[in-house]
Amino acid sequence: MEVNRYRGMRDFLPDLMRKKKYLISIVEEVFESFGFEPLETPAIELWSTLSGKYGTEEKLIYKFSDRKGREIGLRYDLTVPLARVVAMHNLPLPFKRYQIQPVWRADRPQKGRFREFYQCDIDIVGTDNPLSDAEILHVFIEALKRMGVRDFEVLLNSRDIIKGYGELTGFDEVKIARYLDKIDRMGEDGVFRSMEEEGIPMEVFREISSIKKDGPSTTLLAFFEEKWGNITSIEKGIKELKEIFGYLKMKKIEEFFVFEPYLARGLDYYTGMVFEGRLKGVRIGSIGGGGRYDNLIGLFSGRDIPAVGGSIGLDRLITGMEELGIKLPDFMEDYVFVTVFNRRYMEIYIEICEILRKRGYKVDLYSGDKDMRGQMGYANEKGYRWVIIAGDSEVERGRVIIKNMEKRTQIEISLDDLNSFSFSD
Amino acid sequence: MEVNRYRGMRDFLPDLMRKKKYLISIVEEVFESFGFEPLETPAIELWSTLSGKYGTEEKLIYKFSDRKGREIGLRYDLTVPLARVVAMHNLPLPFKRYQIQPVWRADRPQKGRFREFYQCDIDIVGTDNPLSDAEILHVFIEALKRMGVRDFEVLLNSRDIIKGYGELTGFDEVKIARYLDKIDRMGEDGVFRSMEEEGIPMEVFREISSIKKDGPSTTLLAFFEEKWGNITSIEKGIKELKEIFGYLKMKKIEEFFVFEPYLARGLDYYTGMVFEGRLKGVRIGSIGGGGRYDNLIGLFSGRDIPAVGGSIGLDRLITGMEELGIKLPDFMEDYVFVTVFNRRYMEIYIEICEILRKRGYKVDLYSGDKDMRGQMGYANEKGYRWVIIAGDSEVERGRVIIKNMEKRTQIEISLDDLNSFSFSD
Repeated sequence: MEVNRYRGMRDFLPDLMRKKKYLISIVEEVFESFGFEPLETPAIELWSTLSGKYGTEEKLIYKFSDRKGREIGLRYDLTVPLARVVAMHNLPLPFKRYQIQPVWRADRPQKGRFREFYQCDIDIVGTDNPLSDAEILHVFIEALKRMGVRDFEVLLNSRDIIKGYGELTGFDEVKIARYLDKIDRMGEDGVFRSMEEEGIPMEVFREISSIKKDGPSTTLLAFFEEKWGNITSIEKGIKELKEIFGYLKMKKIEEFFVFEPYLARGLDYYTGMVFEGRLKGVRIGSIGGGGRYDNLIGLFSGRDIPAVGGSIGLDRLITGMEELGIKLPDFMEDYVFVTVFNRRYMEIYIEICEILRKRGYKVDLYSGDKDMRGQMGYANEKGYRWVIIAGDSEVERGRVIIKNMEKRTQIEISLDDLNSFSFSD
Repeated sequence: MEVNRYRGMRDFLPDLMRKKKYLISIVEEVFESFGFEPLETPAIELWSTLSGKYGTEEKLIYKFSDRKGREIGLRYDLTVPLARVVAMHNLPLPFKRYQIQPVWRADRPQKGRFREFYQCDIDIVGTDNPLSDAEILHVFIEALKRMGVRDFEVLLNSRDIIKGYGELTGFDEVKIARYLDKIDRMGEDGVFRSMEEEGIPMEVFREISSIKKDGPSTTLLAFFEEKWGNITSIEKGIKELKEIFGYLKMKKIEEFFVFEPYLARGLDYYTGMVFEGRLKGVRIGSIGGGGRYDNLIGLFSGRDIPAVGGSIGLDRLITGMEELGIKLPDFMEDYVFVTVFNRRYMEIYIEICEILRKRGYKVDLYSGDKDMRGQMGYANEKGYRWVIIAGDSEVERGRVIIKNMEKRTQIEISLDDLNSFSFSD
C-alpha cells in the first residue's frame, strides 16, 4: 500500500513538537501577562463568512461543500473569524484576545512555505486609542525577548503615509505600496528604476532615502512633518506615529523600533499603523507583523469597530533561532528510561517509576520485548540521557544502576536513594 | 450582512478556553510523565490515506478536492494519521506518542455532539506486551485523578472474549457485539429480549449476568476460566486480562478497574483489550476509552505492528466535572486591571503595569476611551477582581488605590508597596 502525505503539509515529530510547544508556551505566557485572553474558532467557516474578505487571495481558500451542499471553507487566517466572533457574541470592548491555531492556504508549496501553518495572533478590538497600537507592539517585542531573541528590529509605518505618497505623486497609492513592498527583497535601486519606468515622480522617494540613511526615526519623522505636514494623510500618519513612539518611550522600548516609510505590508485591510519584525544577521524575512485595521471587524456587525493586531511567525522564528544559534532548553534533561532486565522484577521497576514520576521526571518504563542490549539501543536512538538498570544482583541487594548515556558513566545507588538522587551533569 | 457559524462548530470564548487549556495542560503533563512524546499531524490527509479505514463511518469524513483535483479529506481521528506517520518515518519502537488535536466529522449535530472536537490520544506502537496495555490504563486514570475526578470506574474487556461468544453461540460475533454495546444505553432486559428474538441462545449471557451481579472482577474472571477456558478465544482473552490485572495490581490501581464482559466498543479495528471510563453519579456516557488494535498501524507499512491506545473525551469531562461540582482553579485570581484616570499620568500607569507583570500578574492596562465610570463597568463585565486607580490626588502623593471588586473594599498604598502588596482575599 502506497503511503504519502498531502503536499505542503507537515508532521510535527516529537523533537520539533517540543520546540514548537516551548515557543508557544512562552508566547502564551507573555500574551496573558498583558491581559490578552485565549480564543479558538472552528477550522470550518461558512463560505459567506470567508468570501469577499481577502481580495485576490480568495482563490487560496480551501473551499468545499458538505453533504447537504452547504458551501464552506477552511479558516484562511484568524482575523476574519475574530470579526465573526465579535459580531456574534456580545463581548465587552476593548476585547483583547490571543489565538494560536493553524490556518490553511491552497498555495503552491515551496521551501519554507506550507499549506498549513500556525498563526499566533493578538488583537485589541474596539478602540482606536494609539495606546492600543503601542500595547500590541510591546507584547510583540516582549514575546521575542522572552524567547531569547535579542537582535531584532521592528519597522513601523502608517498606511496614511503611503496614502500621502498618492497625494504627493498623483499616482495610485496601491500601486506605489506594491512597489515599496518589494524593496526588501529586490533592493531600492531596482525598485526605484521600475517605478521611474512606470512614470512615478521619484523626487519624494529620493529625498526620503537620503534622509533615511543617517538619521534616527525622530529626525526622519521631523523631516516628514516639516516637509509634507500640510498633506492631510501624511499629517495624520505622522501624528499617529508620534503618539505611538511617545508610548514606546514611556515603556522604555523605543530602541527596538524604526520608522520605515517604505513599509507597506501587503494586506489590503490595514488602515493606520503597520509594523514588521525582522531578525538582524539572518535574511529570513519577516518574523511577524501587523497593524491597525479599522474597517474589517465592523463588516459583520454593521457598526464601526476599530482594531489593531499583530501576528508572530512561529515557523520563521524556529528557523531563524536555529540559524542564529539561539539555545532552546535541553528538552531531554528530565527524561529517565527504566529498563526491564527481567519481568519477574516488574514490581520493582514500577516502584522506581513511581518514585521518579513523583519527583517530576518523565519516566519511560520499557514496554517492548527486546533484551537489555536491544533496550540500550532503544535508549540511544531515543536520545535518553538517563537509564536505570536493575538486574539480578542489584535487585537482590536493593540497589539500582544509573547510567549517564552522554558521559558513559554509571553509578550504583540504593532504591531508597532514588528519592534524592540528583540527575544532572 | 448576515453573520453565522457553520452548524456543529463552536467558538471557544475565553472562559471556556481557560478551562480547556487548563485540562489539556494537566493531561499533557501526565502523558509526558509517562514518557509519551508529543506529535501533531496535518488537518488535511490524502483521500487514499483515509479511505477504507473507518468502515461505514467513512461517509462522515469531510472529503473534497484541491484546485488540481487532488482528492483530500479532513482528519477523522488521530489513529489513522499515526499509522501513516509510523509508515513514513523511521521511528524507534515502541513509539509512545500523545496527540491533542481537533478532528472533524460530517455528522448530524446534536446537543453535545459536534462536527469539530478535540481528541486527546495516547498510543504505544510496536509491542503487544500486556505491560503496554497496563501503561495506557495507568496514564488514563492518572490523568483523571489529576483533574480532580475521583468517582470513576474503568470497564475492561477483551475482544477475544467477544469472539468467544461467537464460538459459544454459533452466531456472528460482530452482531453480538453490536447488541452488547447497547446495554449501557438501553438496559440489559431490552437488549436481551432483542437478542432472543434474533434467535441468539441466551444461556451464556444469563449465566454471566447472574455472576456479574455480586462478584468482583477476579471472581468473574475465574468463572469464565473455569466454565469456558477450553474455548480458544476466551482462553486468550482471559490470559490477556489476567496479565493486565496483574500489572494494575503492581501499580496499585486495580481498584479503578472492572472486568465488564459486555463491553465491546464500536470501532472495528480493536483486536484485544478494550476499555471505557465512566463517571459515577452522572449519566454522561463514556469519558474516554480505547484498546488494543494490532492490525491497523501495519496497514500502511505492510508489516505487523501491534499497538494499544486510548483517548480522553475532553468535552464530556468538562460537562461531567461541572455536573459533579468539581472545582477548577479560579482563573481570574491573578488578573489586575489598571485604569487610566488621565492620559497625562500614562507613564505612571505603565510603571504600575511593569511592576505587577514582573511579579507574574496578568495586567490589563485600559486602552479604550471610556471615562472612569465606563472603565469600572468594563472591569465588572470582565469579572476582574483587582482594579488599580491613580487619580490626581493619588499621583500627587505617589500612591495608588487598589479595589477588590468582589468584596467591594479598597486600600491605598504607595507605588513602592506595589512591589510586595499581596493580591489575595
